Amino acid sequence: MKHSFGSDNHSGVHPEIMEAIVKANQNFAVAYGDDEFSQKVLREVEEMLGGNCHAIFAVNGTGANILSLANLAHSSDAVLCPATAHINCDECGAPEKIIGCKLIPLEHTDGKVCPETVKKHLHGFGEQHHSQPNVLSISQPTELGTLYTVEEIKALADLMHSVGGYLHIDGSRVSNAAAALNLPVKAFTADAGADALSFGGTKNGLLMGEIVVLFDKVPHNRALFLRKQMTQLYSKARFMAAQFERYFQDGFNIKLASHSNEMAQYLKNRLEEIPQIKISRPVETNAVFAYISKELYEKLSEKHMFYIWDEETMEVRWMCSFETKKENIDDFIKDIKALI
Amino acid sequence: MKHSFGSDNHSGVHPEIMEAIVKANQNFAVAYGDDEFSQKVLREVEEMLGGNCHAIFAVNGTGANILSLANLAHSSDAVLCPATAHINCDECGAPEKIIGCKLIPLEHTDGKVCPETVKKHLHGFGEQHHSQPNVLSISQPTELGTLYTVEEIKALADLMHSVGGYLHIDGSRVSNAAAALNLPVKAFTADAGADALSFGGTKNGLLMGEIVVLFDKVPHNRALFLRKQMTQLYSKARFMAAQFERYFQDGFNIKLASHSNEMAQYLKNRLEEIPQIKISRPVETNAVFAYISKELYEKLSEKHMFYIWDEETMEVRWMCSFETKKENIDDFIKDIKALI
Amino acid sequence: MKHSFGSDNHSGVHPEIMEAIVKANQNFAVAYGDDEFSQKVLREVEEMLGGNCHAIFAVNGTGANILSLANLAHSSDAVLCPATAHINCDECGAPEKIIGCKLIPLEHTDGKVCPETVKKHLHGFGEQHHSQPNVLSISQPTELGTLYTVEEIKALADLMHSVGGYLHIDGSRVSNAAAALNLPVKAFTADAGADALSFGGTKNGLLMGEIVVLFDKVPHNRALFLRKQMTQLYSKARFMAAQFERYFQDGFNIKLASHSNEMAQYLKNRLEEIPQIKISRPVETNAVFAYISKELYEKLSEKHMFYIWDEETMEVRWMCSFETKKENIDDFIKDIKALI
Amino acid sequence: MKHSFGSDNHSGVHPEIMEAIVKANQNFAVAYGDDEFSQKVLREVEEMLGGNCHAIFAVNGTGANILSLANLAHSSDAVLCPATAHINCDECGAPEKIIGCKLIPLEHTDGKVCPETVKKHLHGFGEQHHSQPNVLSISQPTELGTLYTVEEIKALADLMHSVGGYLHIDGSRVSNAAAALNLPVKAFTADAGADALSFGGTKNGLLMGEIVVLFDKVPHNRALFLRKQMTQLYSKARFMAAQFERYFQDGFNIKLASHSNEMAQYLKNRLEEIPQIKISRPVETNAVFAYISKELYEKLSEKHMFYIWDEETMEVRWMCSFETKKENIDDFIKDIKALI
Repeated sequence: MKHSFGSDNHSGVHPEIMEAIVKANQNFAVAYGDDEFSQKVLREVEEMLGGNCHAIFAVNGTGANILSLANLAHSSDAVLCPATAHINCDECGAPEKIIGCKLIPLEHTDGKVCPETVKKHLHGFGEQHHSQPNVLSISQPTELGTLYTVEEIKALADLMHSVGGYLHIDGSRVSNAAAALNLPVKAFTADAGADALSFGGTKNGLLMGEIVVLFDKVPHNRALFLRKQMTQLYSKARFMAAQFERYFQDGFNIKLASHSNEMAQYLKNRLEEIPQIKISRPVETNAVFAYISKELYEKLSEKHMFYIWDEETMEVRWMCSFETKKENIDDFIKDIKALI
Repeated sequence: MKHSFGSDNHSGVHPEIMEAIVKANQNFAVAYGDDEFSQKVLREVEEMLGGNCHAIFAVNGTGANILSLANLAHSSDAVLCPATAHINCDECGAPEKIIGCKLIPLEHTDGKVCPETVKKHLHGFGEQHHSQPNVLSISQPTELGTLYTVEEIKALADLMHSVGGYLHIDGSRVSNAAAALNLPVKAFTADAGADALSFGGTKNGLLMGEIVVLFDKVPHNRALFLRKQMTQLYSKARFMAAQFERYFQDGFNIKLASHSNEMAQYLKNRLEEIPQIKISRPVETNAVFAYISKELYEKLSEKHMFYIWDEETMEVRWMCSFETKKENIDDFIKDIKALI
Repeated sequence: MKHSFGSDNHSGVHPEIMEAIVKANQNFAVAYGDDEFSQKVLREVEEMLGGNCHAIFAVNGTGANILSLANLAHSSDAVLCPATAHINCDECGAPEKIIGCKLIPLEHTDGKVCPETVKKHLHGFGEQHHSQPNVLSISQPTELGTLYTVEEIKALADLMHSVGGYLHIDGSRVSNAAAALNLPVKAFTADAGADALSFGGTKNGLLMGEIVVLFDKVPHNRALFLRKQMTQLYSKARFMAAQFERYFQDGFNIKLASHSNEMAQYLKNRLEEIPQIKISRPVETNAVFAYISKELYEKLSEKHMFYIWDEETMEVRWMCSFETKKENIDDFIKDIKALI
Repeated sequence: MKHSFGSDNHSGVHPEIMEAIVKANQNFAVAYGDDEFSQKVLREVEEMLGGNCHAIFAVNGTGANILSLANLAHSSDAVLCPATAHINCDECGAPEKIIGCKLIPLEHTDGKVCPETVKKHLHGFGEQHHSQPNVLSISQPTELGTLYTVEEIKALADLMHSVGGYLHIDGSRVSNAAAALNLPVKAFTADAGADALSFGGTKNGLLMGEIVVLFDKVPHNRALFLRKQMTQLYSKARFMAAQFERYFQDGFNIKLASHSNEMAQYLKNRLEEIPQIKISRPVETNAVFAYISKELYEKLSEKHMFYIWDEETMEVRWMCSFETKKENIDDFIKDIKALI
């Protein structure tokens, strides 16, 4: 497949990341993250995020989310999240299965929740019949490609802290958020009061790799055991370390994410030339959502890979990745125009 | 580290496997194993194992074991296994956590269980107070490097089938078994009556990758959902497919395993020159176990990486891998001799 | 406390049920339900429900629900239910913890869901990322005291069966439904296509006791093990059997439920004399919901026990039980009138 | 059945306990243990045990054990216990299912473990591959009817505390232990350093009812939520409070237990008249274990109810209860003599 708008994980591995993997393939190394290289890279990540935190590797996005949440939530807790959340829609019930907690899906605007909505669910504390709403999980950027401002995240974190709870950020595309906001990740995670972050790599050019970050006062003494027990421990960790070392060098993660964000903007601009297509969500990172006709979908999907987001409203999603090129978009637009 | 006897996963990725990964890094591909390449490779694995089976990828060894077992065992079942089993000793309770089942550790000889021992635990069927002993899990080769014959596996499978139960084989090093027995994997899995197999790759030269195989009558309709829910689904599956395609080409997996087996024999032979060291287990694949003195351990471990297996008896383990070279062993023996 | 509108489980045990318990307290009996008496009573319950089913005891309502659902749903399934469902709101996440499944709360009208709403969630079958929506759980009567007609339940059961799924009925007050509909329980459970029923006793005059009924094609081979494993097995089962024997004799359960239903109607009628109180839900069984002012609540709750249902709207709930007497209601109305 | 040696829960409810239940059946009471009566009784239990503890009701023995352990152990912990433990043999894997932890069965003498045996398993702390052996669970009396001395329990508690772990006591028959040792329960639980106790009632004359006691430094903030989530919360708690109030009045629990202990001694003495029967365990509480011939078992079990403990060795168990009378034993002995 020459190009796919289906997902940013339809792209491959960035050549420089691949080079780092190949380069790490020398000699022997202790396994399971006990090697010096892995430890060095993780300590650098912690430093990048302000130092007052604890970082460990996870294998994939679902794993990073569940591991993050497992350190914040007990089985008798409820995890509040926008109804669109990846943990709610796309992880086949992993939080319920692995943590045993309840998920409470919240109303949202373009994937974002606001303190007023959250507040409505912050009750029943101490009542034995009710799952305790001790955790809020948001995605930055959201599953709809939108962004929270630093102030919005701060407000949510403050709200959760005011009831003794925690804020988790699903950052499977957090570099895209940083690029779009022109802020370091630290500014809208650690500095905004987040308690845990799933720091993604796979969707932005890695072969595989995510980092779970537990901030500040979150106890991390069980993190390694939970990781092993939920099968997220990778043996040849040096190859994860190698990827992340390159990923964070000279803001490479931001550079890759900037590119996919820009491609989404370019795609959006080009789509606006076509009156039959209606952009449905603010385009703030690397996703473009739009309403199209069923006819167009059927014909277009014969030539281009992308997914329907909502069958009822015929809202579709086009994702741009670090590998998306202007010409891929130009070809796409040309095909649409020919079909209309 | 120039060389490690600590584990076969202290080695890196075989250059030809790495080459396959790099080669797969072209264009875009559908994620999560829905790509044609992944499907082709998995179908080939099924064919290699006799056709009457269902194969899916898993990320790591613990994941492959738990996913295999989750398809065989209910939470109210007991999984019998030798006390030395990886699932019992080295997975931080993942079977109990993820499946909710009980593990019953069995007496063993050099890591192997026999039908008589298993039979002692095949009771309490239908009694609501007792975990139902419906599954037996063995490792081939065992954690102590020893091997079951085809007949021994058949006897265990027959026994489990006679009570309506299942046999699982943890094959994290199954290619080493095949190489040592000079038999195709099929001969002592599918043909011997195994119901599920964790087919390992990581410890024999892969970057990461295992395959879960469910044979014959085992229902696999929930396998994909269980995999996702327990966080073992890898998005960029083509890179797993690429590794396994190369791995199985022209018996490459057997070639790599043969080498590590041979290195273990060579190591054993050289060790026998040293009267102060007592080989403690039959050396049948790529592991060498021996009793050494505490003094020797302390000095030797300053220069060479390996682990104590049993602190009480001072039994240590030396693993050979596809990367182990004769000269690594010669150096090692030279150092031992100098220390004694 | 002389009387409580707080819950029907604030009442005690009906004297005739208590008499049955006392009468059963003779001699010795095999434990854990293996006694003839327990078996006889359970077979009678099965017969009462049409014969094509399997009944076992559970200790309490949450237990009966979770055990029912555990026989219908896998961890990778989603259980759809009205947002008001007891399993969703009042069981502290027991379904998620014990079954590992996802709960999907649905929009409802006075606690009832309709096929159109359910249908919207019947998608994603076969997609490994999505919890499989294989089970619908409704309450009859609902948590808001309303009732489904036989036809409505049939429609929901048919819908679930059309996708290969199941319908569970939480019948913690199912006798109240039968009394109100003037139908045997069988008519709107077995005959309407229900696949599992939590048949309640505790809230209608028992000391403790519920029955889990699995209908027809639902496999029940794991039911006893699941019950033990989730700690719902009661040892001295004869005392449960004794209660249910009396409960079902000469329609005693219906007689008790009819009384509490009638008391709710009487309460409703008397409340309608008071213009400041607005009945908020149809009064169809033994619950009366109404909006009252905060002032009234504060004063009234000093003398009478009842709970706020919704703090925001100041909707309150008054439950009538088998022990509620007309004079309790008259006193209550008198007090309200005096306070207004 | 006129009498059963099968289990102490084959007996019924002591008439005075039943009287207390009947007496509590007046008026209305808040449910779920929030009533004053329940709170009063629980506070008295706490006082009886030294005050520095937290007591809550549980419904049954398995529930009490799992709830106790759920407050002590994380899923990544191992719970050590004698191989004979009820939690290991008779709860259908409830600890693994509900807590997610590993159980490690230990060698024992007549059901008792010693510090040396425990010590062998206190390793692997901090290693992510290993379940952390943070909890030891013993039964007092043991499943074989034997007793730990206060000093023996202290030694086990000290050992567990020395590694930062906990000691749980399964006291489903703890009153029998107190009676036999002529010590208050406090002396060999709280004062000996126990961290949690399952305080049994059902097997000693109650209809149903157990108490979970968390001592001293064990956090109990999640206990109520865990109880609800694992379905151990009983609604009409006043009937449990009523039983326990009577149970603890004037040492009634000790009186009942003394009787069953004495009956076991009498049974043992009478059995010693018969040379063909070999008492197999020290008779220290209300259980008598013995080896008998298969022939005798077959004939005797036609007239008397009792269970085989070990099919291989033909060890059988005879339990005495508060209802066992000398004449039951005399009849039994007469029948044996007639059969031999």
